[in-house]
Amino acid sequence: MQRWRLATVAGAALIATGAFASDSLQDVMKNRGLSQQDLLAAAKTYVPTGKRDEFVTFSSGGQSGQVIVYGVPSMRILKYVAVFTPEPWQGYGYDENSKAVLKQGRIDGKDITWGDTHHPAISETNGEYDGQFLFINDKANPRIAVIDLRDFETKQIVVNPIFKSEHGGTFVSPNTDYIIEAAQYAAPLENKKFYPLEEFNEKYRGGVTYWKFDRKAGRIDEKKSFSLELPPYSQDLSDFGKGPSDGWSFTNSFCSERYVGGIEKGRPPYEAGCSAKDTDYLHVVNWKRAAELVAAGKAKKINGHDVIMMDTAIKEGILFLIPEPKSPHGVDVTPDGKLLVVAGKLDTHVSVYSFEKIQAAIKAGKFESKDPYGIPVIAMKDALHTQVSLGLGPLHTQYDSKSCVAYTSLYVDSQVAKWNYCEGKVLDKISVHYNIGHLMAMEGDSTKPGGKYLVALNKLAIDRFVPVGPLHPQNHQLIDISGDKMQLLYDMPLPLGEPHYAVSIAANKLKPAVRYKVGTDSRTDEKHPGAVKAGEEKTVKKGNKVEVFGTLIRSHITPETIEVEVGDEVTIHLTNLERAQDETHGFTVSTYNTHASIEPGKTVTVKFKADKEGVYPYYCTEFCSALHLEMQGYLLVKPKGWKPTKTNLAAGNYTEADYKATLKKVADTQAVIDSVVAYITSVNYKDFPEVVAMVDDAFDQLGKTKDLKPKHEAAAAKKDWENANLWAEQIWQYQVKTADLGLRAKTFLEQNGAKKVK
Amino acid sequence: MQRWRLATVAGAALIATGAFASDSLQDVMKNRGLSQQDLLAAAKTYVPTGKRDEFVTFSSGGQSGQVIVYGVPSMRILKYVAVFTPEPWQGYGYDENSKAVLKQGRIDGKDITWGDTHHPAISETNGEYDGQFLFINDKANPRIAVIDLRDFETKQIVVNPIFKSEHGGTFVSPNTDYIIEAAQYAAPLENKKFYPLEEFNEKYRGGVTYWKFDRKAGRIDEKKSFSLELPPYSQDLSDFGKGPSDGWSFTNSFCSERYVGGIEKGRPPYEAGCSAKDTDYLHVVNWKRAAELVAAGKAKKINGHDVIMMDTAIKEGILFLIPEPKSPHGVDVTPDGKLLVVAGKLDTHVSVYSFEKIQAAIKAGKFESKDPYGIPVIAMKDALHTQVSLGLGPLHTQYDSKSCVAYTSLYVDSQVAKWNYCEGKVLDKISVHYNIGHLMAMEGDSTKPGGKYLVALNKLAIDRFVPVGPLHPQNHQLIDISGDKMQLLYDMPLPLGEPHYAVSIAANKLKPAVRYKVGTDSRTDEKHPGAVKAGEEKTVKKGNKVEVFGTLIRSHITPETIEVEVGDEVTIHLTNLERAQDETHGFTVSTYNTHASIEPGKTVTVKFKADKEGVYPYYCTEFCSALHLEMQGYLLVKPKGWKPTKTNLAAGNYTEADYKATLKKVADTQAVIDSVVAYITSVNYKDFPEVVAMVDDAFDQLGKTKDLKPKHEAAAAKKDWENANLWAEQIWQYQVKTADLGLRAKTFLEQNGAKKVK
Repeated sequence: MQRWRLATVAGAALIATGAFASDSLQDVMKNRGLSQQDLLAAAKTYVPTGKRDEFVTFSSGGQSGQVIVYGVPSMRILKYVAVFTPEPWQGYGYDENSKAVLKQGRIDGKDITWGDTHHPAISETNGEYDGQFLFINDKANPRIAVIDLRDFETKQIVVNPIFKSEHGGTFVSPNTDYIIEAAQYAAPLENKKFYPLEEFNEKYRGGVTYWKFDRKAGRIDEKKSFSLELPPYSQDLSDFGKGPSDGWSFTNSFCSERYVGGIEKGRPPYEAGCSAKDTDYLHVVNWKRAAELVAAGKAKKINGHDVIMMDTAIKEGILFLIPEPKSPHGVDVTPDGKLLVVAGKLDTHVSVYSFEKIQAAIKAGKFESKDPYGIPVIAMKDALHTQVSLGLGPLHTQYDSKSCVAYTSLYVDSQVAKWNYCEGKVLDKISVHYNIGHLMAMEGDSTKPGGKYLVALNKLAIDRFVPVGPLHPQNHQLIDISGDKMQLLYDMPLPLGEPHYAVSIAANKLKPAVRYKVGTDSRTDEKHPGAVKAGEEKTVKKGNKVEVFGTLIRSHITPETIEVEVGDEVTIHLTNLERAQDETHGFTVSTYNTHASIEPGKTVTVKFKADKEGVYPYYCTEFCSALHLEMQGYLLVKPKGWKPTKTNLAAGNYTEADYKATLKKVADTQAVIDSVVAYITSVNYKDFPEVVAMVDDAFDQLGKTKDLKPKHEAAAAKKDWENANLWAEQIWQYQVKTADLGLRAKTFLEQNGAKKVK
Repeated sequence: MQRWRLATVAGAALIATGAFASDSLQDVMKNRGLSQQDLLAAAKTYVPTGKRDEFVTFSSGGQSGQVIVYGVPSMRILKYVAVFTPEPWQGYGYDENSKAVLKQGRIDGKDITWGDTHHPAISETNGEYDGQFLFINDKANPRIAVIDLRDFETKQIVVNPIFKSEHGGTFVSPNTDYIIEAAQYAAPLENKKFYPLEEFNEKYRGGVTYWKFDRKAGRIDEKKSFSLELPPYSQDLSDFGKGPSDGWSFTNSFCSERYVGGIEKGRPPYEAGCSAKDTDYLHVVNWKRAAELVAAGKAKKINGHDVIMMDTAIKEGILFLIPEPKSPHGVDVTPDGKLLVVAGKLDTHVSVYSFEKIQAAIKAGKFESKDPYGIPVIAMKDALHTQVSLGLGPLHTQYDSKSCVAYTSLYVDSQVAKWNYCEGKVLDKISVHYNIGHLMAMEGDSTKPGGKYLVALNKLAIDRFVPVGPLHPQNHQLIDISGDKMQLLYDMPLPLGEPHYAVSIAANKLKPAVRYKVGTDSRTDEKHPGAVKAGEEKTVKKGNKVEVFGTLIRSHITPETIEVEVGDEVTIHLTNLERAQDETHGFTVSTYNTHASIEPGKTVTVKFKADKEGVYPYYCTEFCSALHLEMQGYLLVKPKGWKPTKTNLAAGNYTEADYKATLKKVADTQAVIDSVVAYITSVNYKDFPEVVAMVDDAFDQLGKTKDLKPKHEAAAAKKDWENANLWAEQIWQYQVKTADLGLRAKTFLEQNGAKKVK
């Protein structure tokens, strides 16, 4: 039997080899095969330790259902934010507080544990990125999530009430009043309603949803959100107008043929029937007026949601169509809001439409026809500013900080075209590896693009990286757009999911917090009802319900024993009492399939049924201190009615000499701490906020020893050498943490040019 | 009400700013604030497009339950491999084939959907990394996973039959006969057995499991695996002997005090009681002899698993203890197998033990005492080669390719110490940012370490990167160890989970496959029973069970309609018919919570109950071609007993002119293809395996047009212009894919110096 069914890879690998013991730059370049151009690219992308990236990119995580956060120009991934998918590291979907967020995303009463994230959007103020919120959509199970950029956590998921799939979201209006979500594959709008494909034209519908965002609450207001019914063209990407076009939105489409495919029915597949005609339709919507119509009660309720029906939209003059070239993807409004660029994947042109011309045609009532549903169609020639032939497979457009300069991805050519959309001419082209989907310039869809860098979001990279099996990474290539010619700077493998789109913001616009107020439920931003302070920890038993109100601090969990009877429902609330920003603790109980990540100040709840007898260790899952392995405890699940026969824990074999030795160790360590403190206070440490934070934390730790001295002295007075020794030992534990912080502060000061003070 | 409970960040960010329009290296360095040292580091780590990393690192994904794969020296993450946790991108836990792997990891009959991955190990041949398999453990829910490095997929999960937590795995014997997994927190070995903490010394036990690996099968053989009962000391890391010490293994421990903590019982916490004594115990085990004892029937069955009890081990002389300094973490055997280094986190020394001395003591029966369970204890002085004071918090040791040179992480000092273990002297130290756990040199725990680079696995990085909220990334710092002085090269943020340990292998030792034989179940490596070839697709209905045997190829799914009745159990098998290595397709059905990633040749099954009426689009979730959005279909869930009233699909409005226009487009496109083919065949394309693969695939695509010509001609003969036009259109679809590949091949050839041939 031939067990293994994989064909092996053929061909030579292009491996950068060569040893370098020499520190000469020339030797390194020679040994590693670097050209001068490579060195320049390295210098443009390398971020040395202690310095930071200029821009932060939020990329959709594709089929992983997450958001990927990475730095530009270093292209280093900083974080995966859990959104639609359970993520164990963050405890997302494993603790009760995050489960409540995922529960908002249930569809037809069932959990949806995956998502196909597509297009992230950063909240805007006056059309500029403001760095407060991030939104992202799920194509497969039509949903939108709200992520708060103060803590990079998902706060809300809303389910689209009328669609069965979507694609053209999220995009935000210039002041983030609304977030757009456009349908993709047409289906009946009524929930769980079956109509056969033979009634496709009559009963299947597309649409676009305008979600109302309440910035103060930091949440979408579902009740104030509404949709517009659209024909069963497969709606695709959208954009909001801005400046002169503010108040309008644009949504394109493919398969306006309304084709139903099926080889099994003797028909050509969708790909043929959906791309047979040379144009599809751009939908032009007056959304401000639409919102007024909804307020005026002109919407119909479908599945409890306000929908403006096509008839109403046509009658009220808020919906128009314009032909657009073949199977378009992006529709992208220029920074000044005057033009919009459509890229049709099966046409070599980008088409630049003029908002002014569109408005003139509407005002003049100049339409070339109506579509089968009666929607007025503006002639392409009456709306076009210009068309430019760029190459094969134009897909998506982004803007430069330089006036009139745009970049468009060419999927089939595997290139990026730089072109002038005012004058309609090509300026430059660069090859990428390989098929590029979206591209993304820094703040490149805002009213004030940041220029400098462009990222090409290329698909499966077959030969750019060391091979890692049949499933390849994607490749985000960084391109320098600061000069006249584009220059390729960096190949970045994407290790998880196929990101569809990304947005980048200047790093200094982000102001995330470093800790929570003690006792916060981070998913509601409210005080957690299970929060307790140090010394208030308790375990409450009521019938078969056991509720633990516990705390975490380096390096122990309180309580260290949880005793229940088999069958009990166990709820554990844990508050992280730390102030130090890197003192996240994690929590799990062996084989009870639960996990929480508890950052400083946060309170998190985990719940499970103790349905099997036995002894189950729990522990802190973060490497939080030198004694992190000792941050442990036991869940004891006793048989029903079990009664103890032995009531004392085994005593350790400690003597007065042990106690004395520990006291000496404590005194010695204090001397080390004193010397570190002497150094720190001898320099201008107060000029370094990082050090001030570490010093605060160090004294916080040392302060905890105060209560322990009476304890070891009292035990010693009773000649209880075990407790005397161990309480003294606990002082040493805090001293070690103090010394750890002090040494880290000292190193930082030495490396960052601290100066002596008087 | 103050809704937001986060404290905001204080202090100035260290942001690298400055524009660069100039291409002068000096200008770039000045604008970006780079020193000469920074430039050198950039040159040492930058991997230009088209070149590849020298080493591949497999890092545990920590609490994310995955494995992280990244390149060295670029530190770019290449892949996340799903192991213990469902991962939607890979369909892991979302398709039936991968669910079968996760099911092996069930504990007490229940799914465990998270894992705390700790220590990866690469399979070895004669003590050298061979790049065939990767193993990793789950601390929280004691399990081991087997990943096959031919396709980077998890093939097997085994559950430890007697532990409730573990830490000291995975480590492999020099020929990968056995994989070690050592317990962590002591508990009763019998499953679901409760004993109170008051019986800790008597009833709680530690242990170490030796998993038998069947390399030919590529799976662990659970029946041939066994464990050794150990005292309730918290066992920690382990290592196998090699060379002279082959046949022996070493496992250290902490909390040999056997302390039970609990402030709620008026006792100091575990952290104090577990670190009160100055030494813990290194366990020394003759595992080859242990395996013989098991074969001889001297093991006891516990939970159906062979366990050598302590009494037997003592009687047979296969188990010994040696004191080791305080709360050790790593025990690391030197490349020559003669020495072993123990780092105790609460002692400033590393302790180097001599295997020869240990054997001499055992042979001579020279023991200083017995532990409370009767295990002979060898005196530290009788086993020590040397001790070296390195600094605060020594934790883990790795080896250089240079003789006698070792590197040890210092957690509290946040440093790496380079030292000579033969002569016992410190050679160099370097500061890292910040608290370092494990460290890892290239192939640094094999018999032939690779030298060159070292990675410091540092914990939560508070100030190295742009802040991303209260939960910080970790920081893997790359250090150049090729010279006498260590040099810091690169800061790499870890975006997901806290990796505990990592292993690196020379990239050229990995030989992953690029595709599967058509119809493979990748989780069993066998032919998938649901696989079909092109043209064999079918849907089989039996009662309320619907089974679909479908295929995927650019850009359509066969079938494009699946019709079922509400309540039907739907099983869909999908075979990816592609040969191109980047033509992975994905599959999902709207709101039915399922996803599959189907690489070329793979067959995957998804299953769900169609429990709600309505129309649910399905689609390919990968950006697989310019027409990927059109790779769609509909699941129609009909009411029970529903009968159609209309049997024809709406006709498109196509004319003979449309058909003629499409035929012209087909001819024009063929001309483009011919010109590309002319170029490719005019150069030495056969010297480029990547291009040969693309050309093969291009002709593969073009070949599919052959069957379509008769179809459009037959329709045209019947004046069925719709089908005539659309079948011709389908030819064009294949042409576009052919052109796409051809252009990509052309670009590759132009950029890689292809030469004209006659």
